[in-house]
Amino acid sequence: MKCRTCRGPAVIDIRRHNAGFCREHFLHHCEEQTRRAISSHKMLASGDRVLVAVSGGKDSLALWDILIRLGYQADGLYLGLGIGEYSDESGTYVRAFASERDLPLIEIDLARDHGFDVPRAAAATRRAPCGSCGLSKRHLFNSAALDGGYDAVATGHNLDDEAAVLFGNVMRWDEGYLGRQHPVLPAATGFVRKVKPLVRLSEREMAAYCVLRGIDYQVEECPMAAGNKHLGYKELLNGLEEKSPGSKAAFLNGFLERGHHRFAEHAATERDDLGACSVCGSPTPVYADAESAPVCAFCRLQEKASTAVPVELRTSSGGTAR
Amino acid sequence: MKCRTCRGPAVIDIRRHNAGFCREHFLHHCEEQTRRAISSHKMLASGDRVLVAVSGGKDSLALWDILIRLGYQADGLYLGLGIGEYSDESGTYVRAFASERDLPLIEIDLARDHGFDVPRAAAATRRAPCGSCGLSKRHLFNSAALDGGYDAVATGHNLDDEAAVLFGNVMRWDEGYLGRQHPVLPAATGFVRKVKPLVRLSEREMAAYCVLRGIDYQVEECPMAAGNKHLGYKELLNGLEEKSPGSKAAFLNGFLERGHHRFAEHAATERDDLGACSVCGSPTPVYADAESAPVCAFCRLQEKASTAVPVELRTSSGGTAR
Repeated sequence: MKCRTCRGPAVIDIRRHNAGFCREHFLHHCEEQTRRAISSHKMLASGDRVLVAVSGGKDSLALWDILIRLGYQADGLYLGLGIGEYSDESGTYVRAFASERDLPLIEIDLARDHGFDVPRAAAATRRAPCGSCGLSKRHLFNSAALDGGYDAVATGHNLDDEAAVLFGNVMRWDEGYLGRQHPVLPAATGFVRKVKPLVRLSEREMAAYCVLRGIDYQVEECPMAAGNKHLGYKELLNGLEEKSPGSKAAFLNGFLERGHHRFAEHAATERDDLGACSVCGSPTPVYADAESAPVCAFCRLQEKASTAVPVELRTSSGGTAR
Repeated sequence: MKCRTCRGPAVIDIRRHNAGFCREHFLHHCEEQTRRAISSHKMLASGDRVLVAVSGGKDSLALWDILIRLGYQADGLYLGLGIGEYSDESGTYVRAFASERDLPLIEIDLARDHGFDVPRAAAATRRAPCGSCGLSKRHLFNSAALDGGYDAVATGHNLDDEAAVLFGNVMRWDEGYLGRQHPVLPAATGFVRKVKPLVRLSEREMAAYCVLRGIDYQVEECPMAAGNKHLGYKELLNGLEEKSPGSKAAFLNGFLERGHHRFAEHAATERDDLGACSVCGSPTPVYADAESAPVCAFCRLQEKASTAVPVELRTSSGGTAR
């Protein structure tokens, strides 16, 4: 297989593009796809101050690297989730990346700064940990960006992530989520702009990007996510992609071109019904028949989880550890 | 497991309803689900003359049986597709069903009446046979119903069929197909009403219905459909259903409640742009810049396929036969 650009030996082939690339042109391809996603969805303007939510995984570190190379002023935000060794290691990769490149990194630690962690939240809510983890991330990324005066929060969601989320939303025909699923969510009162510049790149491409750039990242999957529906949908879409390369991108891009706008109005209406949380001031739904002042979902979770006994974590060897 | 209704021993359990049924109450359940589909989607009025498209498979024969039991005046329409032994056997099951019950059966034979069959159509179009088979069915069901003065054509599409078709339409976000995918398509100029009364019942339920009613049906899958995408989507949805019972029905019903109306306008616009086929008079798209009189897709297929050398059919033992 030869490089599509220079006809030299390829190091990777990308079936949905029916193309191979050498190291140099593959790295260029990743930057170019990111640049195109940013420009076609008007995610960022030059000069924007961007806060990159970095988890220590391949996607977010690659995103930070690419945004810097594309010339954006991009600082990092790391949120310590308190998921045992997994979180400890993830933090190490993020700090090493930032310090090697001398990039500003903001750190928030759920336990230190908010009195709970994801295992405690899972215990308190008695639900899959991914729900309260996602809620905490959305809330804290947004408030950190507002506090720091950033123009946008960028997250490392790639094509596989977005296609799997879309799949779940479509299986339930969840109007609100379908209306909000877009690579750019504009700023609104209390909300900073959210952008996903990696939507044109697959998981496999992001892993290859990190390897070829020499970026060390957390390879382990989150131990609390194992077996969740999202990972099942990813597997299922990988099966379809294997049989017909390009179907994952066609599914996501088809939605963005021909589906999303039909649900956007529904989501916009939901945003209009928001007031301010009486604890932290964040936007939160206000109900006309409520008997007390509104408290946002994050503040309610914090209240409940800070006194909970954490669920036990399974280690990769199958035992439990805390 | 006990029958949900009478607590007697169950002969079948239906996981998505978390219920078992004895023979008597299972048969009642199938009739009741059909009655509810007809009434909630206003498919048929009492006194309507219905033409049931019967293939000889479990779904369409069960549908015919149930419609008669529900008191509708339902005649059968069998279309001979010319798919070797498979079609010969299918016709035998249909004729036996009709004559045992003394029900009127209209027969159309593609080769005898239109000069081609599905293997010839597949050869002429050089595409998967399912495309021209579906086109021929839609055209001939519609024209037979109009000729016979029927109020509606009823087809045996079940929950599994409709969910798989929806899945394919959603993977491509095909606006036109999404707008037209509904259990009832109202009549319009040149179009008879189309209804799918089995959308609340699964493939497995229809097979059990036939077995318990003693209806003999064609068990073989169409040899020309093997390996097509539709069957792949069915398998994939079965995997999801296995893990979370009810997800298939939630997917289809969620679309009908919260998705379909967002695409319906698109489909309605497409129907407005139709004129009459210059050969057979059927509705067909008319393009302002066309250089000749419009000819519908079926008449074009008939013209092309009647002179084609048919593709070879594979027998179930793996050899080929004509």
